[in-house]
Amino acid sequence: VYTLEVNHDILPEIRSRQSCREYLKTSIPQDAVQRILDAGCQAPSGANQQPWHMIVVDSPKRKRAIRNACEVADRGFHQHATATVRRWLEDHGITTEKPFLTDAPVLIAVLYDPKAPYSLHSVWIAIAFMLLQATREGLGSLPYTPSAADIKALLNVPQHLQLASILPIGVPRETVRQPRKPLTETQSWNQYGASRNPVA
Amino acid sequence: VYTLEVNHDILPEIRSRQSCREYLKTSIPQDAVQRILDAGCQAPSGANQQPWHMIVVDSPKRKRAIRNACEVADRGFHQHATATVRRWLEDHGITTEKPFLTDAPVLIAVLYDPKAPYSLHSVWIAIAFMLLQATREGLGSLPYTPSAADIKALLNVPQHLQLASILPIGVPRETVRQPRKPLTETQSWNQYGASRNPVA
Repeated sequence: VYTLEVNHDILPEIRSRQSCREYLKTSIPQDAVQRILDAGCQAPSGANQQPWHMIVVDSPKRKRAIRNACEVADRGFHQHATATVRRWLEDHGITTEKPFLTDAPVLIAVLYDPKAPYSLHSVWIAIAFMLLQATREGLGSLPYTPSAADIKALLNVPQHLQLASILPIGVPRETVRQPRKPLTETQSWNQYGASRNPVA
Repeated sequence: VYTLEVNHDILPEIRSRQSCREYLKTSIPQDAVQRILDAGCQAPSGANQQPWHMIVVDSPKRKRAIRNACEVADRGFHQHATATVRRWLEDHGITTEKPFLTDAPVLIAVLYDPKAPYSLHSVWIAIAFMLLQATREGLGSLPYTPSAADIKALLNVPQHLQLASILPIGVPRETVRQPRKPLTETQSWNQYGASRNPVA
C-alpha cells in the first residue's frame, strides 16, 4: 500500500507540513524569518513582476490591532458562511476568536499588486514557498485570510496594493494533519474521470 | 554579502527551481508524475475541501489539441496585453507559439471548484507544491495559464470545475533564472516602507 508518510522521495517539508492554529509565545530567530521571506521571493510570477510585498509584524501593539480588526470582520464571515463551511468551522473548533494573531511572535502580512499579470496566482505560490520554508525551520504556519478587515490602514499600505493573506509564524503548540481525499477523486488521465488506461 | 544560492538553510528546491519553457521530448517515469500529483494534494485548503482535480495528459493527440486551442487564445491575449507585458514577452522571446505544450511528455491540467472557500488560493498552493516536487525529481515546469482557451471541453471537464493552469512536466532543455528585486523593495517591518527598526 502506498502511503505518503513513508515515501521519502516526496519533499520532506511537503510530507510533514501540518496546519497550525495554536502557537507558543516563544520568540523565533530573525534569520529564520528572513529566510522565510527570501523563500517567498523566489516564487515564479507573471512576467517576472514579483508583485508581492511582505510586512513582518512583530510589534505586540500592531498584532493586537490586527487581531481586533480580524475578529470584527470574522464575525460577519461566520454569519454569512454556507452551511457546509459553518459546520466544518464548528467541527474544527474554529471560532471568531483569533488568539493565534497575538500568540504567534511574528505575523507576515502578504500584499500584492492586483494590476500585475496573474498577480493573485503568483502571490499564492510565494505564500506556499513561505509555508514550506517555515516547516523547514521547524516553525508552524497557516495562511489566514481575513474576509473584510481593513488591515491595510493599520499597516500604512498604499492604495495600489491588496492584502492576500496573513501568515502567523511561530513555534507550534499544536498542529493538525488534515485527512486527504482518495487519489482516485483528485486525478484523471487524458480526460476527466478516466483512469490510467490509455485514451486516444 | 548574503546570496540565496549559498544559503543552504533555504529549501534546495526553492533555491534551485528555475523557469522552464523548453523541454526534451524524452519520456519521464510514471512514478515521478504520481509523486508530483501527491505533493499537490498535500496542500492546505480552505475548510480542507481540497477543491482540486488534476488531469495528466500524455496522449500526443490531446496535447496537440490543447496546444492548438492555447495558441488561438494566446494570439488574442498578446494583442490585448499592456505595453509592459508585451515588451516583457518580446524580450523573453515568448511568442504565441507554444511548442512546450507538445514537447513536454506530460501536461498536468489543474482544475478547481470555484465554489469551495478560498479555492483559487488553495489550488495555487497545490500548484506551487507540484512545482517544487518536479524540481526534486530533476524535472522542469512552469505554470501556463491560457487566457481564454476552452481546454475544458477537450478534456470532458464537468461544468462546475474551472481550469487553474496547465503544468508542462519534462526534462528541461533550457531553464532561466529570473533576476530578483532587491529585498528592500519587497519587505517592511510593522508598517509599509519601514525597515527593521522598531516601530510602536
